[in-house]
Amino acid sequence: MTEAESAPSVRPAFSFAVTHEDPRGSARCGRLVTGHGEIATPVFMPVGTAGAVKALTFEAVWATGTRLILGNTYHLYLRPGHEVIARLGGLHRFEGWDGALLTDSAGYQVFSLAALMRIDDHGVEFRSHLDGSRHVFTPELSMEVQLALGADIVMALDHCPPYGVEPAEVAAAVDRTTAWARRCREVFGGRTWRRGWERVLFGIVQGGVLPAERRRSAGELRALDLAGYAIGGLSVGEPVAALREMTELTAGLLPRDRPRYLMGVGFPDDIAAGVLAGVDMFDCVLPTRMARNGTALTADGRLVVKNSTYARDERPLAPDCPCPVCRRHSRAYLRHLFNAREILGPVLTTTHNLHFYQDLMRELREAIREGRLAEQAARVTARWQEGEAARRAEIARGQG
Amino acid sequence: MTEAESAPSVRPAFSFAVTHEDPRGSARCGRLVTGHGEIATPVFMPVGTAGAVKALTFEAVWATGTRLILGNTYHLYLRPGHEVIARLGGLHRFEGWDGALLTDSAGYQVFSLAALMRIDDHGVEFRSHLDGSRHVFTPELSMEVQLALGADIVMALDHCPPYGVEPAEVAAAVDRTTAWARRCREVFGGRTWRRGWERVLFGIVQGGVLPAERRRSAGELRALDLAGYAIGGLSVGEPVAALREMTELTAGLLPRDRPRYLMGVGFPDDIAAGVLAGVDMFDCVLPTRMARNGTALTADGRLVVKNSTYARDERPLAPDCPCPVCRRHSRAYLRHLFNAREILGPVLTTTHNLHFYQDLMRELREAIREGRLAEQAARVTARWQEGEAARRAEIARGQG
Repeated sequence: MTEAESAPSVRPAFSFAVTHEDPRGSARCGRLVTGHGEIATPVFMPVGTAGAVKALTFEAVWATGTRLILGNTYHLYLRPGHEVIARLGGLHRFEGWDGALLTDSAGYQVFSLAALMRIDDHGVEFRSHLDGSRHVFTPELSMEVQLALGADIVMALDHCPPYGVEPAEVAAAVDRTTAWARRCREVFGGRTWRRGWERVLFGIVQGGVLPAERRRSAGELRALDLAGYAIGGLSVGEPVAALREMTELTAGLLPRDRPRYLMGVGFPDDIAAGVLAGVDMFDCVLPTRMARNGTALTADGRLVVKNSTYARDERPLAPDCPCPVCRRHSRAYLRHLFNAREILGPVLTTTHNLHFYQDLMRELREAIREGRLAEQAARVTARWQEGEAARRAEIARGQG
Repeated sequence: MTEAESAPSVRPAFSFAVTHEDPRGSARCGRLVTGHGEIATPVFMPVGTAGAVKALTFEAVWATGTRLILGNTYHLYLRPGHEVIARLGGLHRFEGWDGALLTDSAGYQVFSLAALMRIDDHGVEFRSHLDGSRHVFTPELSMEVQLALGADIVMALDHCPPYGVEPAEVAAAVDRTTAWARRCREVFGGRTWRRGWERVLFGIVQGGVLPAERRRSAGELRALDLAGYAIGGLSVGEPVAALREMTELTAGLLPRDRPRYLMGVGFPDDIAAGVLAGVDMFDCVLPTRMARNGTALTADGRLVVKNSTYARDERPLAPDCPCPVCRRHSRAYLRHLFNAREILGPVLTTTHNLHFYQDLMRELREAIREGRLAEQAARVTARWQEGEAARRAEIARGQG
């Protein structure tokens, strides 16, 4: 690794400030300042797994209101390789994205995608899902790879066990996550300037659905005085009630002056609950992945675009949606595109879904600022859940 | 079919005017006025086969400078069906495209894609390439389908034999093409107002590579006094010299005050030759289809984006290209996108290729207006052919 720069560039240093707090709860609005732009929180980060938010140009991503994208360290390390990206100027320049970037630690992907071979205190050994090649990821390598990629926010390597493992395994994962975060902080320094912008390190709280382990994990990571904290180890198969409870518990354990990031969540009602619990940042593949599979997300639940019900439906995906897809295209047209396997089907549905998510976040931020978050969150939740219930009923009646 | 409207709407009637003629040759610049905008000629029409210019939003298509798109009657008739599209307001509204549209006659697709069952004076019987269903296309049905789709320019049903058939078959195809064009004109009326804009009928000259048959076909169609004329039956396997010769011969047989459309052509050197011969309109799947297969088109020939040569190449696809893809993205990034099978690879390469084609047309139009077409066409042809020759030499040396 090269020496950290001592003098800051003309780009601003990383900072986070809470700008509005919900007087009736834990929610807050804030401003994240990065070397690649300012971000209003609570923020939703679309996932740009392999150097692209799948199916969208970065102009189209920007037009949805997105200002912060998540890149997957695991994918980019394997292909095209972090050294290639570093030689080409880092991930911002490689992708052509002028906004801010966060890279994950690779921990979750190693556990969910790769063929896991061994995990010990040193690191995690796995085989690539692409070609079966063998790799060992350590906290030090995670930092090296993420510094090469050059995101504004990097994540400490964590151990993320699946839902349902024994308490002893959850505790061991917390131990390891703390030890690895400490090693990440040692090589990284907590925050560092490179190539003209500041990078900051976030830690990831583990602890499964065990309150005592969540408390221990949060306490140990807080002692490292990191720039931000993620709530990890959720959205891994646990019941919704556990997700809600652990989000609320963990958010409350984190420092008020640092951004709190709930990883891999979720549907609109999950996001509303997270915001109520005081979460500032979210990422999730749902809006992009479901779009590619022909499912639009609306305030009233999922809409399976490919469904023959829509073959002559002149209405837009969501009648109250101001996005460019809903202003211009009918369900019948989108259904036709999926039916004819046109690339434009995933492109337009992804565009709508990301607009919907960014509008959802904007409305939640406005509600916090205007002191009416409880009502707005209840409305989001009720509409979504009623829509989903109606959809399930239709499927049960064979009309879905 | 419904009655034609008698009173024109606020949209302008169709017209074509030659605005500049090359004093040293047959080339000309013109202005096509349609109910959906004005188009500067010579014009290149991207192909929007099944209700989309594959991989691009219509905003992105518009941004390339495209103002006229070709839709495939055969594909849209089969899926989603012309009646569905008519019920949804016609093809412009169905797609959400505000510019002008031309629909082909379905003749070429029936001969090239479908399982042809029988062709006689009545029409052509075929099985769908989608589901094997049996259909009979007649001149009358072609007009009915195209009127339902609602394009600004519709094409008379033609009989397009492949290259290399016996002269008697070429002559029979000319006979049938004339008879069918006459029937199209009878049901269609040559030009007609429907739903507030005027639609006009173009005829298609056949005759293979036989000058006498080309002359006969052009003469018979001219007698029908159609709004425009296409040069069909080329780009079907004949040698390049025959394409050039037949284009020049046929263009010279067509009325000077009507647009001349060379169907299914071609590479940049083919287009330069067509413009020199006095052609006003071109369509071709090359820029869109090659893009999806990972090939960029540049002034210096093809560039196979997926090639590992480009894995660390920081240059844009074409260093002198002002398109948004070349301004923002490297070959290394595009190569990565194809390698990772990201939809964005085809999206960005299609964007570049269409920009390149529309820039090529704009430069040819400028050259005509400024009296330097011969030089410009020679430059386009030499650069393209030298680039292609170098590429073939690289492949032969095993470096391609």
